[in-house]
Amino acid sequence: MSGLRERWRLKAMRAIQECALDLFDERGFAAVTIEEIAAAAEVSPSSVYRYFGTKEGIVVADEFDRMSLEALKDLLDPGDPIGSLLRAVRAYESAPDTSGSEEAGEGPQAETGPWRRVRYFFAEPSVRVAVCANLDRASQRIAPLIAATSELTETQARVTTNALVFGYFAALEQWYLDGGSRPIADFVEEGLRPLRSVWPSSDHEHPA
Amino acid sequence: MSGLRERWRLKAMRAIQECALDLFDERGFAAVTIEEIAAAAEVSPSSVYRYFGTKEGIVVADEFDRMSLEALKDLLDPGDPIGSLLRAVRAYESAPDTSGSEEAGEGPQAETGPWRRVRYFFAEPSVRVAVCANLDRASQRIAPLIAATSELTETQARVTTNALVFGYFAALEQWYLDGGSRPIADFVEEGLRPLRSVWPSSDHEHPA
Repeated sequence: MSGLRERWRLKAMRAIQECALDLFDERGFAAVTIEEIAAAAEVSPSSVYRYFGTKEGIVVADEFDRMSLEALKDLLDPGDPIGSLLRAVRAYESAPDTSGSEEAGEGPQAETGPWRRVRYFFAEPSVRVAVCANLDRASQRIAPLIAATSELTETQARVTTNALVFGYFAALEQWYLDGGSRPIADFVEEGLRPLRSVWPSSDHEHPA
Repeated sequence: MSGLRERWRLKAMRAIQECALDLFDERGFAAVTIEEIAAAAEVSPSSVYRYFGTKEGIVVADEFDRMSLEALKDLLDPGDPIGSLLRAVRAYESAPDTSGSEEAGEGPQAETGPWRRVRYFFAEPSVRVAVCANLDRASQRIAPLIAATSELTETQARVTTNALVFGYFAALEQWYLDGGSRPIADFVEEGLRPLRSVWPSSDHEHPA
């Protein structure tokens, strides 16, 4: 029952996110209200607030935030977190686009894939702040997993987790500045290469 | 003239920050309004908004934000940014306390030194978000300086600058969680040690 409810919740959130991105693409992020997004998604404004908190939260929210600690542990190899990150990014980039905009053929404004959502991370300053806060929360969840199984001290586990998480953000920004035409994974792989020596097995699995 | 005006501005900002910290320490961050801070500092609320933008900004603002690009270049050795960071942290920690609370002997609530301000970074979630946004901006100023003189690609310069800046934030949090009794520099030195190999001259100057 709880699994079913969670699937329903995820489906509803995705639908709201899609409606919001349609409106943002059409009229600009600043011009759209949560009430308008709710109306387009045929839900109540209070549902949108409950799911996402803020308008920025609609853009920022992703599967990762709602991932259980167990699922996170499955995803993350603490001996090779850079490899784990790369695998997650590649899986995200190769996932089929569920937005449906491709079939509709709505022209250049109906961008698909990561670009459609991620460009708002860097194009809208208030979204950028929300993304930083979200990465900070993600890092706090990941650091104990890194600390538990590595040779690093607790302080070093926190520092290197932030290095990984915000290093990823920097690689993502470089992808955005490059126009989003190449895979995100290329920027993550190149950008995080200097950090590999922090996790020796990461050096081993992905030689330069 | 512009130097004189800037000095005046800095002095006014410091005075407002001190008044605000007094009020926060007395009554809690959430309970204090910008209007009350302005009244305590004997300036207009619009001055406080102009200098700091938000209540969170009063806690977050520091000399580093207002540093010119020239001064930043003087501070930062791009071949050894970890060493530069450590020098800056040590200088900050050994600077004489200008708050005047020590002379007044106001008891345990009148904490002095970095603790007085920095603890709000981690005790108040909205301040924490503002700190992350501020570090993100700092990183965007620093990355081009790192890129200009190192062997790193532009993407790698961005990634490693974020690793450094947000790694510092993680070390600062560990200092806070430890109760602030040891120097911040100890946490920065220990925490960032695994990142030294990114900048070989940093490895050389500060052997493990």
